[in-house]
Amino acid sequence: MFELKGFTQPVLVSSVDGVGTKLKLATTIDKFDTVGIDIVNHSVNDILTCGATPLFFLDYIAMGHLKPTTVRDIVKGLSTACQDVGCTLIGGETAEMPGIYAEEDFDLVGCIVGAVEKTAIINGQTIAPGDVIMGLPSSGLHTNGYSLARLVLGESKEVLDKYYVELGKTLGEALLTPHRCYLTELKPFLSIIKGLAHITGGGFLGNVPRILPEGVTAHFNTAAWEVPPIFRLIQNQGDISLEEMYRVFNMGLGMVAIVTPTGARQIKECLAEAVIVGEIIGQQGDHQVILD
Amino acid sequence: MFELKGFTQPVLVSSVDGVGTKLKLATTIDKFDTVGIDIVNHSVNDILTCGATPLFFLDYIAMGHLKPTTVRDIVKGLSTACQDVGCTLIGGETAEMPGIYAEEDFDLVGCIVGAVEKTAIINGQTIAPGDVIMGLPSSGLHTNGYSLARLVLGESKEVLDKYYVELGKTLGEALLTPHRCYLTELKPFLSIIKGLAHITGGGFLGNVPRILPEGVTAHFNTAAWEVPPIFRLIQNQGDISLEEMYRVFNMGLGMVAIVTPTGARQIKECLAEAVIVGEIIGQQGDHQVILD
Repeated sequence: MFELKGFTQPVLVSSVDGVGTKLKLATTIDKFDTVGIDIVNHSVNDILTCGATPLFFLDYIAMGHLKPTTVRDIVKGLSTACQDVGCTLIGGETAEMPGIYAEEDFDLVGCIVGAVEKTAIINGQTIAPGDVIMGLPSSGLHTNGYSLARLVLGESKEVLDKYYVELGKTLGEALLTPHRCYLTELKPFLSIIKGLAHITGGGFLGNVPRILPEGVTAHFNTAAWEVPPIFRLIQNQGDISLEEMYRVFNMGLGMVAIVTPTGARQIKECLAEAVIVGEIIGQQGDHQVILD
Repeated sequence: MFELKGFTQPVLVSSVDGVGTKLKLATTIDKFDTVGIDIVNHSVNDILTCGATPLFFLDYIAMGHLKPTTVRDIVKGLSTACQDVGCTLIGGETAEMPGIYAEEDFDLVGCIVGAVEKTAIINGQTIAPGDVIMGLPSSGLHTNGYSLARLVLGESKEVLDKYYVELGKTLGEALLTPHRCYLTELKPFLSIIKGLAHITGGGFLGNVPRILPEGVTAHFNTAAWEVPPIFRLIQNQGDISLEEMYRVFNMGLGMVAIVTPTGARQIKECLAEAVIVGEIIGQQGDHQVILD
């Protein structure tokens, strides 16, 4: 039970999602303390795009055979990530379903509920030509593109344990890096942000159009930020086109904010890592997103 | 997004749960339009025990290989059950995870958020000796005890397609009967109900003690209601003790309400199917629940 206090016209914002096949990698290298962080941070970012801050989180863990140490590590991640953003881990369910999951397999699902004042909802409606697109760095693949990454790179323990100089770590460590949360960094600026896109499944081309009003195009200057080595590795090993890469992965930017030029200066002053990565222009034919 | 209106001191009540291994039976007899009803009704009942009425529901469906007709049937069930109780089916996620689920297997998880006025929370605190225990009939196993039921009865298509005279239907039909929802029946009486126990995993012995304050025992007269044939079938085929049956299954009562004798008369006048099944007495040793 969660008493809702301090809002005048509260609008509840919720999201349910799973970690996806990143879980398979956790199972292979027997490391379960990061996937809980993944699902909490992913969920917090998802509702942040509407301007909502988290109230509470519920988890669902299902396994073929419940392994107490695995559950403990998963919950540790969930709990730490919730604490970090002041979100109450209010409940959950742990299910053992031998008929549905193989003994060592599991699924992890999270449901978050947050709230935003009705007058403070971020919905992209005021985005207009001349606005600036800012990007915030991702920590890695976050929780998307793992089916393609596993296909291209392989997913055996040997493959995941290999050390890569360009990554500065093993492939498994790089791929299991937790999804980054943007709440703390962006909370002070929510009132000046016109639109927020969380770059998840569907990459740039799938997520940015969702927040744009009619009549505008988001023009990205891809040279403005460095694509991290993990994405180059996947692209090269899989011989994947750049367009496909931007359609599947976050390519180094986990969150994209659209603000006025003045807003961009304000954010840049406080948040050194925020990079101007493009601008909003009048609509260019059918293209809502142009990557240059 | 869900605007919360009409509450003075809103307390949000939430629950996350899965359908469990009832899903395996749905897969075996290739019938997917009831499992969505199961998870919605289960969730609505769960938050009803605090006096909360549903606001919105989110679903998560994960499969080895996404089959559009299966997803359509599941969502049809979710949607119908949500409509029936005025709950908004606000969002969901459908995930294809071939590495984690076998091709024909799936999981279905639901998260519900409801609300109750702070002053109207039902928590069992005022339950006292002399109060009456009322039961409402279940429609079958609801969503619990399926691992034991499958073990005892078998779960092949042949077994599930067998017609039983005492059930008046095939075993598969009886086992897939949707979880019943008690919101509509109990909503008019929430203000006079002292405690509500949703008889789910853990049966009578697991769920009733949760709502009892210290110093009282719930004394059930098991002759007061008829145990439906499906439970007798499981008990006989598995040679299961009665205590074990009451620890695993709802035994024909899906919801138990504790009220004053006056309250019981009021409910009985409007709700013919509500049965007086016991009374609250002073605590009897270590027993919080006695089944006579």
